[in-house]
Amino acid sequence: MNIDGTHYRSLWYNHDDDVLEIIDQRWLPHKLVIQPVATLEEFAAAIVEMRVRGAPLIGATAAYGVALAMKLDPSDSALDQVCAFLSKTRPTAINLQWALNRCRTHLAPLSVSDRAAAALQLAHDIADEDVEINHKIGEHGLALIKEIQARKKPGETINVLTHCNAGWIATVDRGTATSPMYLAHDAGIPIHVWVGETRPRNQGALTAWELGSHGVPHTYITDNAGGHLMQRGQVDMVIVGVDRATRSGDICNKIGTYLKALSARDNNVPFYAALPSPTIDWTVRDGVSEIPIEQRNAREATHIWGRNSTGEVNEVQLTPDGTPGGNPAFDVTPARLVTGLITERGVTGASEDDLLGLFPEFKEAV
Amino acid sequence: MNIDGTHYRSLWYNHDDDVLEIIDQRWLPHKLVIQPVATLEEFAAAIVEMRVRGAPLIGATAAYGVALAMKLDPSDSALDQVCAFLSKTRPTAINLQWALNRCRTHLAPLSVSDRAAAALQLAHDIADEDVEINHKIGEHGLALIKEIQARKKPGETINVLTHCNAGWIATVDRGTATSPMYLAHDAGIPIHVWVGETRPRNQGALTAWELGSHGVPHTYITDNAGGHLMQRGQVDMVIVGVDRATRSGDICNKIGTYLKALSARDNNVPFYAALPSPTIDWTVRDGVSEIPIEQRNAREATHIWGRNSTGEVNEVQLTPDGTPGGNPAFDVTPARLVTGLITERGVTGASEDDLLGLFPEFKEAV
Repeated sequence: MNIDGTHYRSLWYNHDDDVLEIIDQRWLPHKLVIQPVATLEEFAAAIVEMRVRGAPLIGATAAYGVALAMKLDPSDSALDQVCAFLSKTRPTAINLQWALNRCRTHLAPLSVSDRAAAALQLAHDIADEDVEINHKIGEHGLALIKEIQARKKPGETINVLTHCNAGWIATVDRGTATSPMYLAHDAGIPIHVWVGETRPRNQGALTAWELGSHGVPHTYITDNAGGHLMQRGQVDMVIVGVDRATRSGDICNKIGTYLKALSARDNNVPFYAALPSPTIDWTVRDGVSEIPIEQRNAREATHIWGRNSTGEVNEVQLTPDGTPGGNPAFDVTPARLVTGLITERGVTGASEDDLLGLFPEFKEAV
Repeated sequence: MNIDGTHYRSLWYNHDDDVLEIIDQRWLPHKLVIQPVATLEEFAAAIVEMRVRGAPLIGATAAYGVALAMKLDPSDSALDQVCAFLSKTRPTAINLQWALNRCRTHLAPLSVSDRAAAALQLAHDIADEDVEINHKIGEHGLALIKEIQARKKPGETINVLTHCNAGWIATVDRGTATSPMYLAHDAGIPIHVWVGETRPRNQGALTAWELGSHGVPHTYITDNAGGHLMQRGQVDMVIVGVDRATRSGDICNKIGTYLKALSARDNNVPFYAALPSPTIDWTVRDGVSEIPIEQRNAREATHIWGRNSTGEVNEVQLTPDGTPGGNPAFDVTPARLVTGLITERGVTGASEDDLLGLFPEFKEAV
């Protein structure tokens, strides 16, 4: 998508310098910082420190990490090591494991001398496929928005609520949850997006930055406000992204998603999750009991980053000294609360039967 | 309650200087700032700017405001004017209207020469009654905590989740939601409190400060985390305060309370609201349609206050320049989601019949 009229992906390969470049998202929305990722340690740091974030983007970044490792040492043991090393960087995003498994499966049978070039090409392919998948998600989600529009008066605004950032910078481009919003806006449909701030890391500010850059009307709200807005009829639909879905349609997403799903259900607001199929963990049935939840540093809850009056981006402390903090980073929304899953193959119910109807090749995967 | 071993109320009358003194809560938890409130404009500012906050404390502050007005001019028109002026400072807290009505009813029949002294004495009485009411709420809530303790193994921790600050600094002393927690802790019951931060103004940091000062174990979490913790069995009960309850048991409280109530219901966690009876608006039945919701400045959502690394308390911007923000300050939790109401007369169900069982004198009030 565009920043100041220039098209960017959220990562790209600099062929001149033979290095991956990323947007260091820790500085967004305040500064656009572009940086190379030149060592395996930098790849790990980029993922752990959330310089790159969002399940699809983490997967693509990891693939470039494998490509770098293969350039340095294309041996079997190096392939094993890089996959093991990168797989530990974030526990929730299944796309990370999916990308690493795909790299290993693709590269292991190749001769050692072919691996470096093949790994780099595979990373390019994974990135390009992500963009194509997200475009299809956008088209299927657009159809849902049009259904809601058809029930409204001509010209009436369609209010969509989202949580966290499942936007273009959480993917390689277009985003998952945002892809239908961009297409709807570009098609002249009057949409307005309620953007939940998504404490502790306020990825809602990233979504506001994206939507603002693209001209999509939006309003930034606290995470607490979503239920009230639904209760007062000010939300027509919810679209969120997913970090990991189960084969039965449970969705694990940024902490707080479950609360939005509960209020959507209580107010008969349709609740959709947009996800590329690599986000589905076909080996898992029960999200609540089986998906490990990343416990991140408590400092993310007791402190916050922002821009002060002199323009510096710095951290402020919210709590008294020594206050203990807890920081579960994700939660699981049970399938029973999900109206539908928007995938690249279409929209389906959140159940094993429905999902296998779209993805029959995974019937035996459990 | 105590600060560094010294007992404080959240407001007190300085008889030497004949002036009300308050803790300016905007600086908490970072600084303890005590200030006199010497003019009617300062009374209004103290309430509007949330130097004092919390429904019971707002009510008591307003009563001292009336006392000041009567000292300056005890005429009928001055009484009318001060009540009208102060009643507009915050729309949600019914205690404000209750206190002003009580002042007017008490003072209007008196001779003009008696009003100044009577108004000051009434303000003292309202403050003292609040402390007594909160003590009774604490005892009734303690009984609920003991019931939960009785179902646990000896020594096992009882996890209570709260939202916002219905603590001693939201009242004259003891607090409403916190009153049972302080009593339980003092009785040697092993309780631990999950403190939701309560964006946009992070009153959870006030609760953390209070509980920390008193030695009650607690953990500060984002507002998004409550649902997940309940889903994983880490919350035994929820106790929140109330800004206004209806005669049918709906509760209007700080934005986000509704979301916690929904997740409590979804996970069979008992959800209690602690409230002094002046918080009940006996003229209202349907909270969702009848209670006006204060829309506060969007800057509270797009910015946040905290202490920087040099110890200064300042504001940082979270969003890109120009991002529109929305800031509904309260929401309504329907009675159907409330397990019980903890009042000074006991614990009752959230229904008109149950409430009138405890408060039969309000049968005709609607």
